[in-house]
Amino acid sequence: MPRNEGNTVPDSGTEVPRYAGSHHFFRGPSLEQVSNFDIALLGIPFDSGTSYRPGARFGPSAVRSASRHLRPGYHSELEISPFSVAQIVDAGDVAANPFDMEAAVVSIHQGASAILSTGASLVSIGGDHSIALPLLRAVVERKGPVALVHFDAHLDTWNSYFGASLTHGTVFRRASEEGLLIDDHSVHIGIRGPLYDRLDLVTDRRLGFQTITAFDLQRLGLAEVNALILKRVGDNPVYISVDIDVLDPAFAPGTGTPEVGGLSSRELLMLLRGLSNLNIVAADVVEVCPAYDSAEVTALAAATVAYELTTMIAGIRSR
Amino acid sequence: MPRNEGNTVPDSGTEVPRYAGSHHFFRGPSLEQVSNFDIALLGIPFDSGTSYRPGARFGPSAVRSASRHLRPGYHSELEISPFSVAQIVDAGDVAANPFDMEAAVVSIHQGASAILSTGASLVSIGGDHSIALPLLRAVVERKGPVALVHFDAHLDTWNSYFGASLTHGTVFRRASEEGLLIDDHSVHIGIRGPLYDRLDLVTDRRLGFQTITAFDLQRLGLAEVNALILKRVGDNPVYISVDIDVLDPAFAPGTGTPEVGGLSSRELLMLLRGLSNLNIVAADVVEVCPAYDSAEVTALAAATVAYELTTMIAGIRSR
Amino acid sequence: MPRNEGNTVPDSGTEVPRYAGSHHFFRGPSLEQVSNFDIALLGIPFDSGTSYRPGARFGPSAVRSASRHLRPGYHSELEISPFSVAQIVDAGDVAANPFDMEAAVVSIHQGASAILSTGASLVSIGGDHSIALPLLRAVVERKGPVALVHFDAHLDTWNSYFGASLTHGTVFRRASEEGLLIDDHSVHIGIRGPLYDRLDLVTDRRLGFQTITAFDLQRLGLAEVNALILKRVGDNPVYISVDIDVLDPAFAPGTGTPEVGGLSSRELLMLLRGLSNLNIVAADVVEVCPAYDSAEVTALAAATVAYELTTMIAGIRSR
Amino acid sequence: MPRNEGNTVPDSGTEVPRYAGSHHFFRGPSLEQVSNFDIALLGIPFDSGTSYRPGARFGPSAVRSASRHLRPGYHSELEISPFSVAQIVDAGDVAANPFDMEAAVVSIHQGASAILSTGASLVSIGGDHSIALPLLRAVVERKGPVALVHFDAHLDTWNSYFGASLTHGTVFRRASEEGLLIDDHSVHIGIRGPLYDRLDLVTDRRLGFQTITAFDLQRLGLAEVNALILKRVGDNPVYISVDIDVLDPAFAPGTGTPEVGGLSSRELLMLLRGLSNLNIVAADVVEVCPAYDSAEVTALAAATVAYELTTMIAGIRSR
Amino acid sequence: MPRNEGNTVPDSGTEVPRYAGSHHFFRGPSLEQVSNFDIALLGIPFDSGTSYRPGARFGPSAVRSASRHLRPGYHSELEISPFSVAQIVDAGDVAANPFDMEAAVVSIHQGASAILSTGASLVSIGGDHSIALPLLRAVVERKGPVALVHFDAHLDTWNSYFGASLTHGTVFRRASEEGLLIDDHSVHIGIRGPLYDRLDLVTDRRLGFQTITAFDLQRLGLAEVNALILKRVGDNPVYISVDIDVLDPAFAPGTGTPEVGGLSSRELLMLLRGLSNLNIVAADVVEVCPAYDSAEVTALAAATVAYELTTMIAGIRSR
Amino acid sequence: MPRNEGNTVPDSGTEVPRYAGSHHFFRGPSLEQVSNFDIALLGIPFDSGTSYRPGARFGPSAVRSASRHLRPGYHSELEISPFSVAQIVDAGDVAANPFDMEAAVVSIHQGASAILSTGASLVSIGGDHSIALPLLRAVVERKGPVALVHFDAHLDTWNSYFGASLTHGTVFRRASEEGLLIDDHSVHIGIRGPLYDRLDLVTDRRLGFQTITAFDLQRLGLAEVNALILKRVGDNPVYISVDIDVLDPAFAPGTGTPEVGGLSSRELLMLLRGLSNLNIVAADVVEVCPAYDSAEVTALAAATVAYELTTMIAGIRSR
Repeated sequence: MPRNEGNTVPDSGTEVPRYAGSHHFFRGPSLEQVSNFDIALLGIPFDSGTSYRPGARFGPSAVRSASRHLRPGYHSELEISPFSVAQIVDAGDVAANPFDMEAAVVSIHQGASAILSTGASLVSIGGDHSIALPLLRAVVERKGPVALVHFDAHLDTWNSYFGASLTHGTVFRRASEEGLLIDDHSVHIGIRGPLYDRLDLVTDRRLGFQTITAFDLQRLGLAEVNALILKRVGDNPVYISVDIDVLDPAFAPGTGTPEVGGLSSRELLMLLRGLSNLNIVAADVVEVCPAYDSAEVTALAAATVAYELTTMIAGIRSR
Repeated sequence: MPRNEGNTVPDSGTEVPRYAGSHHFFRGPSLEQVSNFDIALLGIPFDSGTSYRPGARFGPSAVRSASRHLRPGYHSELEISPFSVAQIVDAGDVAANPFDMEAAVVSIHQGASAILSTGASLVSIGGDHSIALPLLRAVVERKGPVALVHFDAHLDTWNSYFGASLTHGTVFRRASEEGLLIDDHSVHIGIRGPLYDRLDLVTDRRLGFQTITAFDLQRLGLAEVNALILKRVGDNPVYISVDIDVLDPAFAPGTGTPEVGGLSSRELLMLLRGLSNLNIVAADVVEVCPAYDSAEVTALAAATVAYELTTMIAGIRSR
Repeated sequence: MPRNEGNTVPDSGTEVPRYAGSHHFFRGPSLEQVSNFDIALLGIPFDSGTSYRPGARFGPSAVRSASRHLRPGYHSELEISPFSVAQIVDAGDVAANPFDMEAAVVSIHQGASAILSTGASLVSIGGDHSIALPLLRAVVERKGPVALVHFDAHLDTWNSYFGASLTHGTVFRRASEEGLLIDDHSVHIGIRGPLYDRLDLVTDRRLGFQTITAFDLQRLGLAEVNALILKRVGDNPVYISVDIDVLDPAFAPGTGTPEVGGLSSRELLMLLRGLSNLNIVAADVVEVCPAYDSAEVTALAAATVAYELTTMIAGIRSR
Repeated sequence: MPRNEGNTVPDSGTEVPRYAGSHHFFRGPSLEQVSNFDIALLGIPFDSGTSYRPGARFGPSAVRSASRHLRPGYHSELEISPFSVAQIVDAGDVAANPFDMEAAVVSIHQGASAILSTGASLVSIGGDHSIALPLLRAVVERKGPVALVHFDAHLDTWNSYFGASLTHGTVFRRASEEGLLIDDHSVHIGIRGPLYDRLDLVTDRRLGFQTITAFDLQRLGLAEVNALILKRVGDNPVYISVDIDVLDPAFAPGTGTPEVGGLSSRELLMLLRGLSNLNIVAADVVEVCPAYDSAEVTALAAATVAYELTTMIAGIRSR
Repeated sequence: MPRNEGNTVPDSGTEVPRYAGSHHFFRGPSLEQVSNFDIALLGIPFDSGTSYRPGARFGPSAVRSASRHLRPGYHSELEISPFSVAQIVDAGDVAANPFDMEAAVVSIHQGASAILSTGASLVSIGGDHSIALPLLRAVVERKGPVALVHFDAHLDTWNSYFGASLTHGTVFRRASEEGLLIDDHSVHIGIRGPLYDRLDLVTDRRLGFQTITAFDLQRLGLAEVNALILKRVGDNPVYISVDIDVLDPAFAPGTGTPEVGGLSSRELLMLLRGLSNLNIVAADVVEVCPAYDSAEVTALAAATVAYELTTMIAGIRSR
Repeated sequence: MPRNEGNTVPDSGTEVPRYAGSHHFFRGPSLEQVSNFDIALLGIPFDSGTSYRPGARFGPSAVRSASRHLRPGYHSELEISPFSVAQIVDAGDVAANPFDMEAAVVSIHQGASAILSTGASLVSIGGDHSIALPLLRAVVERKGPVALVHFDAHLDTWNSYFGASLTHGTVFRRASEEGLLIDDHSVHIGIRGPLYDRLDLVTDRRLGFQTITAFDLQRLGLAEVNALILKRVGDNPVYISVDIDVLDPAFAPGTGTPEVGGLSSRELLMLLRGLSNLNIVAADVVEVCPAYDSAEVTALAAATVAYELTTMIAGIRSR
């Protein structure tokens, strides 16, 4: 893709104070401020799929606010100036109904489809993990089934909670059952913590997932884990889903179901960068729960992950 | 009622440290530890009716914990030793389904009915305010319609949110429509803050409510407001519902929809005591949202209110 | 002023979740979204005039966020629907230079003038109190000298700090010296705390101020204090400046120089409403320092004060 | 006492930033920096007498830090410049043994005696309330028995906790038994909350105390309560003991045993000022527990109370 | 041991919300709810041995609360379903006297002995580290001297503080002197931070300890450190004592004497799992101080460590 | 340097509680308490060079307070008893003017020169990073140009913010331009996060810096990075500047411009120790912003770094 002349870029942090002005992601433009765009960040403030600490409904707002910390000009590890090579916009929030999961799923699906229908790429900011189902549906409608690269402390392939089929702990079983994921090319990274049952892992494998635990990462190292992911995914279209609880609670206390023994933010960023040559079709960052955050550390981690994903996609689109 | 010989009383705070031992309300017995009881405190950890900050699902647990601060032996203003004149128990929590409002309403109704069917009085600890509908249903089934004395910053008589008929902001319109409240004997105290619409107050009056705002209280004083409430209620059976946001956010920051300009905790306690001669048939304390609390001040306020209500009912029952 | 047909109004809190969508004040429109407007709220994120705890630069952002709590439709005490009788907009933030007080003063002056030149009224959200000097300059240029109604714990009429003539503690001495205030019609309300020197009060009186302390308020009551303010101000054009530290730290911990013994938020709101028949030409709310806030109580108090002031001005303009 | 020429005064807050320099009380001199002194503030970081939340050992350090907020030059309500009429010093901390109550009591007694033996007045900063026993012993040794004016949520006249005779809840029973208090001239103000037993109040009265509850204050008003205290105390030498939990948790969350329904800081300051003509021989401020504080509001309240007491004593000594 | 038929297992987290119901460790049964048991968790809310930040008395309560996060069904790294192979119970709290160390030591000793006398294994939750002395006494009475595997930032082998022989910093010198530890088979892991004196390490070695610092761990890696521990311990009976401050303050801020440069929670969990073939006779987790915690990260780390230890012991007992 | 007989040492933490007594760095003496000294710690409470979150003006006070956690007697990794081999003092704070950068720079320069002129070494505690310019000027005046070893998340070699030439993000460009740094011997360690522009790195290299990113550290390991630093620095005189944001926000949330993906505190301490044979002429620790800290973790990290640096210098001076 040629450089998008006339891009609307973020305000300069050396000319307009970062605590002033735009509240959009990365202090960039909103969808209304541009005529066309390449990548949209979409807020999905919805947490009715939460089993423990609720509050991820405030996630998009917190991540936008924390993204003011960043200087989005140039990513020196990826060697990309994302706003130069792509028009990136904040597409606002989906007004998902907090009292009706079914209605919310429809709204999220529609919101995502509206963006994808323009040919733009989508990076969604949750919200709890249940939002990944309508997001995957919208993506798969246009791109076909995807390989899921799933960073999380939890498998999220349980069958149901309290009789509910769609929650933040069952989302990828539903996705798998609906045929949204390519068989045997998906992978969980960062899994840890006890399980409800010994069969949880068996079921998960039968659904087509490979699991790389946080402890595997400690034993194998970053390079080896990166190779495992690349091998698993192959050249399939990829959806990256980052549950911020993949990070240790030290790095991301502001989340609904924290689990000790997790990744450092440095490990997560380096693993993500190892995926920059994949065919990434969409991505999400979910489960930021600001009421439990402290000094914005979780929201900042999520904003940085969103920036990584956005920059990676900008790089892919501009090749 | 004669003194209930053989009462199981709370552990002595001068013999067993208050940070050790029982986690039940007021460090008293659980329902399983007694053969019969006069008053039950019931936790209702449910917050799927919340429109803004969720988290009242952790309310019962926080109020139990904060109730360890209290020395429940003797209430010197009411001159009652509640555990001496009544067997008070912690009836545990209703396991309300967070993903299904309808199922939750049924569970709460059943949980309350199970207690009321023994002849005991019920003090419920929420949870968001939507729980008051099934609680009122259970109470009215046994006692007939009630006069509602409602302490709150908000009317809670809106019609619907996002199409949902039962939420924490619509609960008393539903109650009124179902005939659970005696016409023209209910009253809101502590109302303040802007409204969605000029008609909100008109509708509210048409539903049979009188409104005493927080500013009325400032102008009229405690004694006058107490007289207004007593006059409004008459000798009808009374249900007292205390939304902790009736307190100013200074006194109760840990709630979902705080509103400045509210009551002090001293005002609330004195207003409640002024109701101690009413025919109180049940009560609730709702909307404690611990994630926004600080040093337990909100949970402690709620625990103290629960203790006031429990003591008042103990006094009424023992007359 | 006739009702401004075609007003752009805030999103409905019963249709779009309040934690989603607009981040503008009261969830209303931005200046860009309307063709003309009656009242503008202007953020002034500047705190280089702070002597103790800095951080009021994050005030406008925090007040915007907290204003999502409000339902701005109808003010039932003032009996005004502000967005129906006036077009209210969020005019964004002045990009004041944090490293150059002189440059910042010019930017703020220009930002305010740009709004006032349209004939609109201005409600500014700070920022530390030093911003009141350029704001007064801009107002006085168009309206002539004003009577200042100043709610604050501190006089803010000291001469200098560390040799600096303009700081948040000297702002009204500068204003007085520049002739921006009408002689003997200005008043401080809420003053308390020890002073640097016995002469501070003498100087202050000589500069033309009357002082009503927080303790005077306790002794005299709200009605009497309101009468004193009205008498002092007369029918002069009025500038209302609310330093959020006029509230007790219990009600507003998130501020730079808290002082115990202050007003409750109920007192402040009622005092403000008592001024609704004055000729208010502009107003500000300053000194919200979010890093010291807890559960948004201070930001919410400031947002509510801003809503009061905005509604009062809407009422005055629509008469 | 004539004005003490050559006083060492606090650093000027307009010349040396208040966040820099001296960490002594009110940014004044330490005992080592002056040749003689009139009033000493003594830190007593000891909390081994605490029954619930420990941590008052960090009280003196937090109150010193918070006292930097104050401008100690001139008290405009009392019309006294305390550092001009008296040499006020920070006498440091007593190194009380946290593992041995008996040894700690001896150290505190000695520390206080060392100051009193110079003829200076003593204002002690706790620490938990158990420290008042050795403080009273030291005072009474020199001045004879005193009338106690005791601001607190709790009576502190229980008999024992877990068999221990001296704790923060039994301190004034011990003081009474030792004859440190003049019969029938002591008074508790601010009492509230439930009691262990109906007899607690009877015992308390028998020990010679009058009780003015927080609710009495609401009913009677400040002027009437002040009159009651003055009448009770008469012209006896007075020891003022302020447990910071006399304030409502909204105003003082950072304390070990908070109790809702308490005083506002404005009420407390005005009650104290009403005592400025008494024969105050010593005073303490206790039970600040910084781990539960927020934005220093509790420590600032305590520092302000300490400043009031110090200024009152300076006024008395300079008459 | 064969599977204990009729086990009482924790409530299912997919049927009863984890924020509702049981407050026992891991949401399992209390001692009263079972007829016999294999492993007991015992709370020891005692912190009178603390030299700096007190508050570990609230540790057991916080760890119980945080253990609701866990899904205790199946430990996938150890491949054990602990509640299937062993009856695990919450034995409640020892009511240790906060005002009398000697009495507290007796109570703790008796509490532990009562459990051990049934043949069950004991996992204790503190409380400060001084509790390890009576725990070791009770264990050694039944099992003979033990090899201590001690995870901590500090040696805890100092001689005395302020003349006190038993504090949280002297506990293992006392244990060594009493012959509770097998000579030359004990090991500290995670030591760091400056020492009082150069001789501290010499004395420590003479008492029979080996020291593996946090920096040794960085240099040697997990596998090598695990080998060192196994070699040191041999096949002796092992007591594992985990001071939560072995973790870096990033992972465990809520503790009394934090020390930077510590372990990550992932490192700690993996080191513990490396010990799963040892002859573990008892264990403790101490020094959780909730007042300094944030979003439960410390309490959750401690609960997870307690779950690891419990599962390891369940595995050992079921072989 | 021979052992400094008659040194004044910190209070013993086993005799005087660490929460009592001295508030000086490491609980050691102040400058006034000794006749001469070898190393001075100097507080520089100044933050007017801050571009985002202000508040580092409270850094020196917080670091002093947190340094009470340490037992400064013996550094077992470096095998040095710093207070035995050198007289270490707290030189208090520079009273830098918060309203005038130029004046502040002069004050800081003078404050540092006054210490250096005695022949003592200087460890400065900020304050924001802009203070490093006057500090370097003072050092270079006496020692000539230095090699800078700069631990930071950011380059701090930007040209200007809002037209200001000296801010915390431009300080080392100014230093380089002034010839304060030896060409091609300086190094940044820990750099990460996006940049304003692709040229930022080019400019930085042209100014004579080498950059070792946080990700380089992950890839190369501690030993390799240490070798790189030693090679870069050679045997030149070294100034070590530690911006606490070199640590990940998990380890240091309390800072103005946090950046995820940073160092652990263990990594930082080990890297520092690897420099203990360098010719260190001065050092600073900056950017601790306590308002965003939690449980003192950031301040404790900074205090520990200051202790490392002080001990290293003590070792160098005593050789």
